[in-house]
Amino acid sequence: MRTLCPALANKTYFNYGGQGPLPTPSLQAINSSWQRIQELGPFTNDVWPFIEQETARVRQALAALCGVGSHRLALTENVTSGCVLPLWGLPWDGGDQLLISDCEHPGVVAACQELARRERLEIRWLPVLELCRTHDQNALAAAVLASLEQALTAQTRLVVLSHLLWNSGSVMPIAAVAARLKQQPNQPWLLVDAAQSMGSIPVEEAAADIYAFTGHKWCCGPEGLGGVALSQRLLEQAQPTLIGWRSLRHEASAASSFHSDARRFEVATSCVPLCSGLATSLELLEAEGTPAQRLEQIQSGSRRLWQGLQTIEGVKTLLPEPPPAGLVSFTLAGLSSAAVVERLGEQGLWIRRLDDPDCLRACTHITTTEAEIDELLEALSALA
Amino acid sequence: MRTLCPALANKTYFNYGGQGPLPTPSLQAINSSWQRIQELGPFTNDVWPFIEQETARVRQALAALCGVGSHRLALTENVTSGCVLPLWGLPWDGGDQLLISDCEHPGVVAACQELARRERLEIRWLPVLELCRTHDQNALAAAVLASLEQALTAQTRLVVLSHLLWNSGSVMPIAAVAARLKQQPNQPWLLVDAAQSMGSIPVEEAAADIYAFTGHKWCCGPEGLGGVALSQRLLEQAQPTLIGWRSLRHEASAASSFHSDARRFEVATSCVPLCSGLATSLELLEAEGTPAQRLEQIQSGSRRLWQGLQTIEGVKTLLPEPPPAGLVSFTLAGLSSAAVVERLGEQGLWIRRLDDPDCLRACTHITTTEAEIDELLEALSALA
Repeated sequence: MRTLCPALANKTYFNYGGQGPLPTPSLQAINSSWQRIQELGPFTNDVWPFIEQETARVRQALAALCGVGSHRLALTENVTSGCVLPLWGLPWDGGDQLLISDCEHPGVVAACQELARRERLEIRWLPVLELCRTHDQNALAAAVLASLEQALTAQTRLVVLSHLLWNSGSVMPIAAVAARLKQQPNQPWLLVDAAQSMGSIPVEEAAADIYAFTGHKWCCGPEGLGGVALSQRLLEQAQPTLIGWRSLRHEASAASSFHSDARRFEVATSCVPLCSGLATSLELLEAEGTPAQRLEQIQSGSRRLWQGLQTIEGVKTLLPEPPPAGLVSFTLAGLSSAAVVERLGEQGLWIRRLDDPDCLRACTHITTTEAEIDELLEALSALA
Repeated sequence: MRTLCPALANKTYFNYGGQGPLPTPSLQAINSSWQRIQELGPFTNDVWPFIEQETARVRQALAALCGVGSHRLALTENVTSGCVLPLWGLPWDGGDQLLISDCEHPGVVAACQELARRERLEIRWLPVLELCRTHDQNALAAAVLASLEQALTAQTRLVVLSHLLWNSGSVMPIAAVAARLKQQPNQPWLLVDAAQSMGSIPVEEAAADIYAFTGHKWCCGPEGLGGVALSQRLLEQAQPTLIGWRSLRHEASAASSFHSDARRFEVATSCVPLCSGLATSLELLEAEGTPAQRLEQIQSGSRRLWQGLQTIEGVKTLLPEPPPAGLVSFTLAGLSSAAVVERLGEQGLWIRRLDDPDCLRACTHITTTEAEIDELLEALSALA
């Protein structure tokens, strides 16, 4: 896989959580797809079977990863669309509470705030960041569930929680949270931002009403294509909001109803060649091992990095133990995080900074080598 | 231009209103863009200037075509997103009326119906189809304005009207409609579906609150990228709905406000290489002449087709005169429209059918040759 990615050839790359590298076979698949569309179409009877084939191929692959049937998987442009679109069409009542973890991405938070403003809902916060700092992964699940227990009220209608937190790199106990929510009298919806989990940890067991991800991070697909796995009850109760020809059962008629499956949340013309590219990236990843095997490889890299960071004066990792996946967050005393990113970048070493909490984040993927990790550690030592 | 499009090399193509052919230089630009992103990034400080450059390039080109400043142009995935997203965040009051022409695309109609359901608005219809059948283009503008006059009420809050009707192929007097709406006490919003007008007729004068289009039809760009030109008052009064990092003034913070310019309606990660492709297609079109010069070329083709259709027994054109742009709609007695499309397709001749009204539609673009038109006319004569 590593040798197939031109992005990794001329730099030392640790930003998989921002965007994954695009393997050359995936770019070639995108190209071939476009050429085939031009050859058959673009808009002819002859082209539709090809478009259906490429769309179905990626939909099936993504659905299988999420452990749901294809009919529950909608293709989206990005993780935000997947998180937010199904949300707007849920049946809200004024006074309903949205319980949002304090580690969610600002985009999703802002969308929830705007939803709350228009529908007169109330935002509550679920504290998890501090728990991540102070608990090892074994104890963390119980601590998060206890935090949830305290925060839940009879008015809670939605819980928003990432599967793999983008800032601390901790894994949240999504299956247990889902089970707990089912016991609430009004069974709140569960929205899971899977931007960091999809492609980096097994996600098959992560039952949620909305499980939204992108293909361009850990799955190493092209930017501009993601998906969302939806629960059956959401498909039955949520109306689409951004409605176009792909949402409609019969394209030709607005009076026809919406698709009853996940396509009701798809919109209109999107870029089909991206489907060919993402499907290829998923095949390349699969050839490297099962999700569990790949996670072990990712963990072996993040463990090496986390352990190395403990030996550098002035460096403090966010987590008290080696991370459960590939995100390694830390601070370095004496230099602003922006300055660290810049100084490392000058050496061709790429990590990123985060605002909340203000920290640095380096990611290891299955393509990361021990030599790269050691190079990063040396460069950080030199800066410290 | 024609020789640059592989799609036109192996078929006789008349479906520009469905999708335009992608010129090889545009596909090459998409590829180069992806390669450059991998070389610089994908997610590094070094890549952002390139991404900003490619995004700004297409935004400026599209804004210039629409006669607005770049700050009023949002990039979208497709024409539906451009039509519908700004709509949801407008300040609605129960009982407001949406006045929709009877020639709008089912996707936009269905979105308006869902908006009406949730916000308790009322849908009214603006009859224009029958006017298109019975008036020549000179008389049509006055007839549409008279129809508008009759349909407007004190409760009308939005008018939905395409610039170039996708079914009849008539041009609507958007500037005059906009001027008339300004005289209403409550100045209703004007939403214009520009799916067929952008890239086929000059659109610089078409002032609207929402002027939404795609790059993949008459502009011959890649599928998956479009845009919407927004009025200043809309930017000031409409809140975004599908909110992600690109909508936020400061990506890092949900508490920061939204962008005050059109970016407030952009969402999250999308496919930047598509920007490079569409910018290239727009440059190729520009090299062929001004929008007005290209329209003359388009009209010369559609006129030849329309005139030829008059001579075929059993064929009836929708319009009583040669079309004002490139869409030529007609019926052929004795065969279902689906059967006609299929039979022509077997000969490598591609037109499409429409449901409402049930008819056939063939399009001429600047790439259409007289020989192609004559070939279509002969094939239709043989079928008739």
